[in-house]
Amino acid sequence: MSTALERLRTLARERAVVATSAATIGWDQETYLPDEGHEWRADQIAWLSERAHELGTSAAWGEALATAEAESAAPALTVVMRRDFDRATKLPGELVAREAQASSLGKQAWADARKRSDFASFAPHLETLLGIAREKADRWGYEAEAYDALLDTYERGSTSAGIASLFGALKPQLREIAAAAVERSNKRNATLPTGVYPIAAQKEFNALVAESLGFDFKAGRIDTTAHPFCTTLGPRDIRLTTRYDESDFTSSLFGVMHEAGHGLYEQGLPVSEVGLPSGDAASLGIHESQSRLWENHVGRSRPFWEKWLPVAVQHFPALAHTSLDDFLAAIHRAEFSFIRVEADEATYDLHILLRFELERRLVAGELSVKDVPAAWNESFRDLFGMTPPDDAHGCLQDIHWAMGGLGYFSTYTLGNLNAAQLFAAATADPAIAAGVAKAEYAPLLSWLRNKVHAKGAVLTPAEIVTQATGKPPSPEAHLAHLKARYLG
Amino acid sequence: MSTALERLRTLARERAVVATSAATIGWDQETYLPDEGHEWRADQIAWLSERAHELGTSAAWGEALATAEAESAAPALTVVMRRDFDRATKLPGELVAREAQASSLGKQAWADARKRSDFASFAPHLETLLGIAREKADRWGYEAEAYDALLDTYERGSTSAGIASLFGALKPQLREIAAAAVERSNKRNATLPTGVYPIAAQKEFNALVAESLGFDFKAGRIDTTAHPFCTTLGPRDIRLTTRYDESDFTSSLFGVMHEAGHGLYEQGLPVSEVGLPSGDAASLGIHESQSRLWENHVGRSRPFWEKWLPVAVQHFPALAHTSLDDFLAAIHRAEFSFIRVEADEATYDLHILLRFELERRLVAGELSVKDVPAAWNESFRDLFGMTPPDDAHGCLQDIHWAMGGLGYFSTYTLGNLNAAQLFAAATADPAIAAGVAKAEYAPLLSWLRNKVHAKGAVLTPAEIVTQATGKPPSPEAHLAHLKARYLG
Repeated sequence: MSTALERLRTLARERAVVATSAATIGWDQETYLPDEGHEWRADQIAWLSERAHELGTSAAWGEALATAEAESAAPALTVVMRRDFDRATKLPGELVAREAQASSLGKQAWADARKRSDFASFAPHLETLLGIAREKADRWGYEAEAYDALLDTYERGSTSAGIASLFGALKPQLREIAAAAVERSNKRNATLPTGVYPIAAQKEFNALVAESLGFDFKAGRIDTTAHPFCTTLGPRDIRLTTRYDESDFTSSLFGVMHEAGHGLYEQGLPVSEVGLPSGDAASLGIHESQSRLWENHVGRSRPFWEKWLPVAVQHFPALAHTSLDDFLAAIHRAEFSFIRVEADEATYDLHILLRFELERRLVAGELSVKDVPAAWNESFRDLFGMTPPDDAHGCLQDIHWAMGGLGYFSTYTLGNLNAAQLFAAATADPAIAAGVAKAEYAPLLSWLRNKVHAKGAVLTPAEIVTQATGKPPSPEAHLAHLKARYLG
Repeated sequence: MSTALERLRTLARERAVVATSAATIGWDQETYLPDEGHEWRADQIAWLSERAHELGTSAAWGEALATAEAESAAPALTVVMRRDFDRATKLPGELVAREAQASSLGKQAWADARKRSDFASFAPHLETLLGIAREKADRWGYEAEAYDALLDTYERGSTSAGIASLFGALKPQLREIAAAAVERSNKRNATLPTGVYPIAAQKEFNALVAESLGFDFKAGRIDTTAHPFCTTLGPRDIRLTTRYDESDFTSSLFGVMHEAGHGLYEQGLPVSEVGLPSGDAASLGIHESQSRLWENHVGRSRPFWEKWLPVAVQHFPALAHTSLDDFLAAIHRAEFSFIRVEADEATYDLHILLRFELERRLVAGELSVKDVPAAWNESFRDLFGMTPPDDAHGCLQDIHWAMGGLGYFSTYTLGNLNAAQLFAAATADPAIAAGVAKAEYAPLLSWLRNKVHAKGAVLTPAEIVTQATGKPPSPEAHLAHLKARYLG
């Protein structure tokens, strides 16, 4: 192997050691950190993040990369590394530190503003964060509009115009499906039996399910947090988290299945390539395709519950008299609601369409910060036919902007589309379909490992989907899935 | 304040940020790390440890220290910082890395050798680690013997000759007390009632007790590990661990009281001085004085159980018919045993005397590695009147040598002596004695905070004990305590 390439692997591995150290400390912050430990913890994470940034923008890295390029040692890999290196080095340390500071203050101000539903107190922070996002976009450069450069951070190869056109075409169909699903659901009015679903039993049940999907507990675990997430503390150390509701075991279960989808992807990345694009997840839209596939296409399906409802009954006596049909109706309940993270599958994408459009206009300067609440509510009325009672249930509900995460939201719907397209392509294989019909997922996971996980981030998200499914990314499978499940 | 001193504080704080990051990752390794995460974890800890060493031996640190010395900015503080800096810089990076490597291999070889009770397979590792210890001592320098330089790492100001003379004088008295305690205990033959002491109830009870001692759960927590320890992840983030035995709740309880003693010390160090000797624990012997004080002088005392036995009965129905006298007899049971970590208070120090003497002869070259098992067994017969059945129950039982921790063991007995002397001095104050008699410990903790915790590591351990108690360190209080409890 080229010595320049070998050098790059070593540097990338070191940066991953540092970045995963920050992730470990961040995981502890969300799971076990005592109250008064937060201030010091923030200093630890900041120090480690700065070192990771330094390593990834170092002269040594730049030289090894230039040599590897000149030698054509691994052209597909170095193209992506060049892009990442240039993007990283285009941001001066001062800007990175300023963004970290603004995001830290922004999150605090947001949490406080949301509590009091007081957008005005958050507005100056959003203004600052928006300015930083525009400054980053300007430094990175873009062809059509600044929002493209932000989008490219999360979903390489996507453009604002492309997503706008996709979402524009989707909108009428998603509205129609959502409205019909809600109407049908209201008639049926199915709910889970009331009763206590003990947390200890939920933990046991969730672990059985996660294991049956293929999540490897020798290289991962599940803990409890206020907001569920999945994080990678090392190539063989993937942590999932969930939260528990004693009156509804499906809340923690679908949380675990969603995060296990992310975790299976991380456990399937090539360990030997750690720190390099060839060992990294392709994009947020591909990551979300894995979480949504296991949560929705597997976890909310009839064959899954044919196997697992009897097991659930053993864990939760409250379910003893629930038929499979009633149970499925309850977990397929659709309703219009104000909060994205509580939205069901049939209405979820509408929340994303709203955010994408608003964000794009904000970054372009077509919408000013002070007008966000009115614009949000108008758009919400248009999509959902109802008005948020306050900004806490409207434009203040998500943490993303407060963290400086502009350009992020559309990846949730891209994930839904990818999930459906990948699941349809996989289950076109009779052996995989037969497994899925028996709630046996080894063949499905094996297909995802080969077609998605093993690919790393060398191909673009669109290339991965195209190669895996034989078709360019398209919303067809997602729409067909929603119609079959919610209107069928 | 002197700008050089201000600069030192900043550098010391940064080093503490990095060192506590390594500690956080190390804590997770012992508590929650999945099996396959260990390899990567070792790389993370090594990287962080190297950075901490680099920061503490940097030119910037050396210059700021020299300037602060020249300005006489804080002479007592800079004397200790000079000593630490010189000791750190006297070890070349190559030696530090070689020691880390040897210790990592040594621990693996030791664990394996102990399992098979095969000293020969561990001997070459001990030879290497002994060589490294001597090399370090040579580089640090010493007056009388190499062992002094090692001892000084853990217990500043102690000398081998001083400890040898102390232990020599103690030996006959400790043997006499131990023999008499064991004889009395055999006659009485008191044990805890058999039964199940549920782990959930142990956790609740332990937390109540730790809180009653003053351990602050807003700045700490308790988790479960194979071997109990206390570690500092930040100035307001102190983690204790313990292990549970369903047939004996006192095992986890005394573990928690011991580690809470360490934790109370760490919670009492001045936060503003973090990273500096003025914010650091004075020595292992002082640290162990705090753990032993709370574990033995408080936790195994009659007044403590007058209050807590009724609470324990509520948690553990198995105790319902146990009288206070029977309970105390059970927790004061003394017996000769092979394993140090399972030894009771009355026989514990004999295990230390043996190790100190052997270690000193090893480092001096008077005892060769191959002769360790025979020397151990001979010394054990002399002290305990019995022969270990194998090396796993003899010279292979402790991890310390395998980690390169030569010069460490004597601090356990120094801790016992300090604990007794500090407890006696504190309870000479009637208000503290009155609190202790009612199992109320705020006055005792306050005394320890002022006399020990707040002092940091600027004074020597002996100076701290002398100033706190009005007398130089002496074994009197410890011997008096053992006689009162075990022969009284």
